[in-house]
Amino acid sequence: MTTSSRVHNFCAGPCTLPVPVLEEVRDELLDFDGTGMSIIEGSHRAAAYDTVHMDALADFRSLAAIPDDFAILFLQGGASLQFAQVPMNLLAEGQTAGYLNTGAWGGKALGDAVKVAPVYEAWSGAGEAFMRMPAADEIEVRGDSTYLHVTTNETIGGIRLPDLPSVDVPLVSDMSSDFLSRAIDWDVHDLAYGGAQKNLGPAGLTVVVVRRDRLSGHGRNLASYLDYATHEANDSMANTPPMFAIYVMGKVLRWMQAEGGLGEFERRAAERASLVYGAIDGSDGWYTCPVDVASRSHMNIVFRLPDEDLEKRFAAEAADAGMVNLKGHRSVGGIRASVYNAMPVASVETLVDFMGSFRAANG
Amino acid sequence: MTTSSRVHNFCAGPCTLPVPVLEEVRDELLDFDGTGMSIIEGSHRAAAYDTVHMDALADFRSLAAIPDDFAILFLQGGASLQFAQVPMNLLAEGQTAGYLNTGAWGGKALGDAVKVAPVYEAWSGAGEAFMRMPAADEIEVRGDSTYLHVTTNETIGGIRLPDLPSVDVPLVSDMSSDFLSRAIDWDVHDLAYGGAQKNLGPAGLTVVVVRRDRLSGHGRNLASYLDYATHEANDSMANTPPMFAIYVMGKVLRWMQAEGGLGEFERRAAERASLVYGAIDGSDGWYTCPVDVASRSHMNIVFRLPDEDLEKRFAAEAADAGMVNLKGHRSVGGIRASVYNAMPVASVETLVDFMGSFRAANG
Repeated sequence: MTTSSRVHNFCAGPCTLPVPVLEEVRDELLDFDGTGMSIIEGSHRAAAYDTVHMDALADFRSLAAIPDDFAILFLQGGASLQFAQVPMNLLAEGQTAGYLNTGAWGGKALGDAVKVAPVYEAWSGAGEAFMRMPAADEIEVRGDSTYLHVTTNETIGGIRLPDLPSVDVPLVSDMSSDFLSRAIDWDVHDLAYGGAQKNLGPAGLTVVVVRRDRLSGHGRNLASYLDYATHEANDSMANTPPMFAIYVMGKVLRWMQAEGGLGEFERRAAERASLVYGAIDGSDGWYTCPVDVASRSHMNIVFRLPDEDLEKRFAAEAADAGMVNLKGHRSVGGIRASVYNAMPVASVETLVDFMGSFRAANG
Repeated sequence: MTTSSRVHNFCAGPCTLPVPVLEEVRDELLDFDGTGMSIIEGSHRAAAYDTVHMDALADFRSLAAIPDDFAILFLQGGASLQFAQVPMNLLAEGQTAGYLNTGAWGGKALGDAVKVAPVYEAWSGAGEAFMRMPAADEIEVRGDSTYLHVTTNETIGGIRLPDLPSVDVPLVSDMSSDFLSRAIDWDVHDLAYGGAQKNLGPAGLTVVVVRRDRLSGHGRNLASYLDYATHEANDSMANTPPMFAIYVMGKVLRWMQAEGGLGEFERRAAERASLVYGAIDGSDGWYTCPVDVASRSHMNIVFRLPDEDLEKRFAAEAADAGMVNLKGHRSVGGIRASVYNAMPVASVETLVDFMGSFRAANG
């Protein structure tokens, strides 16, 4: 096929990937790097895959400027498994940590962590329908906390932490929906993690970046897969890794480097967001964004139209015009435009043009 | 590329996949089913993926003749995570189970399970270098056991259970290396599981088949990802599943059905194994198989040559002739030919011819 038949895909994840990456994957699918077999047919112990794997580790480190005292782990089970694995690995018996309940994902992280350790809610946005992130002085971090868990971007509510909160304990950040779309201050982190399937590649891969000296303190009798130390000691090849997802992510990382690196993707994210929020704010209140302005996400832009019938027609007519997956999450309704790393600015401009013409026709 | 440049890939896993499946994946990589996007770019909540997912569940059930009182779960983390997740889900506090220590994988399953529950070794092949499986009357199953865990095929030792042991408790079978290459007697099972990356598809997907009424008895406060009930209640879409691996496995399952179903693949496995063991046994002792005859694997055929230098040359010259990954596992040496579902009988015949000519040139 030609690339011209591709849609503008505003899916909240998994989501659009760079076309040159997809074309490379396609072209080498039956013969990877002259091996006479597909990348999905080879051993994870083979030289061909080893290069892919170690390059992906190195490129991730380089792109995110990760210091050597952090390990990078390629795991499975999604952020969902990390909701349990993080407290298992970072909290010894009896230790506690604070959690920001900032929406669907922050709430799930907390809900699983309490099954593992006596953690607590350090702030909740539930009373305000999760329409904003907390200010630093609203967060109640107890002195005996081992870490504070934050969700840097909530995909459903469409909010993000504009700045990491300045607190007296290390941060653990779930960055699933804005991983490598913004710079990460490693000085204030003990751990950051995220699924690959939004900004970085296909589903089935979770990247955990953890301070190495935190790997041996839990004192728990963890099964080997659940112990980060197992993966750190084996470059994430203690068992068969999710090879295809790592391989594709490796190509995305190289594409990001060639396009200008993390700073460029942070700039593009701000540009894409600015275009859509600009169209909302310039619509004389016809389009409305329910989110606190300071907390507006750069990844998931939620907005409403005057009524639900118009919202349905907006999503349907946009789809007819090649802009798909704009329907808001079933739990909140409305419209959601997800604009991750590989979303071209030109696709966002197409959406903004459509927003204008739809309003003109229906306003 | 043409398929003629493909090698004969005797890898122990991940391993060779059907060429028609790879060609389909390649051809639709940039536009899956007219969606204008790749299968790896779409939402797991979208209709296009939902069909893929539900078809894969249905085809797995049909192919393996799985009764309705068993759930099929598509999970991540490999068999390695199941080594912990199985006892977490099947054993209440204080309950026990027996484990057959039949080699590297049976040993790992036991090693992780003892971290979760007071399980015990019901037989060990360690004293005989794991060169055979036990007879039923050698297995010591305690009366209070909730299950007996068996590894139906050991990839490193090259042994398999020719028949499931007849014991008084339900079986839990790790079938990672012979899943859907032989019929499964569900009447005697509470659970069977396996990674997809040998007989069924790419790495990154584990299939767990579990009797539904066993899902609610553990009484443990499990984190949601670790609780089978989470996945059973959501058709394995409680969180983003490993979509690409499920998609490819779905194609492999359909290919298997078109080729004649599970019985045909059991027959082919026996034919492939018979060809290689026949070449070993007919070599007047020049090639030797260290494995007990009754326990010989149909998937991983291990054999030795008169000395290690000849083994090195055998693997190297075979690779030059297009037969790759024949080197035995680093822990045991020798030669290992892994011949999973997608391995053509013709490739095995090529290997057998090479075994004859190599012996003639060096014997």
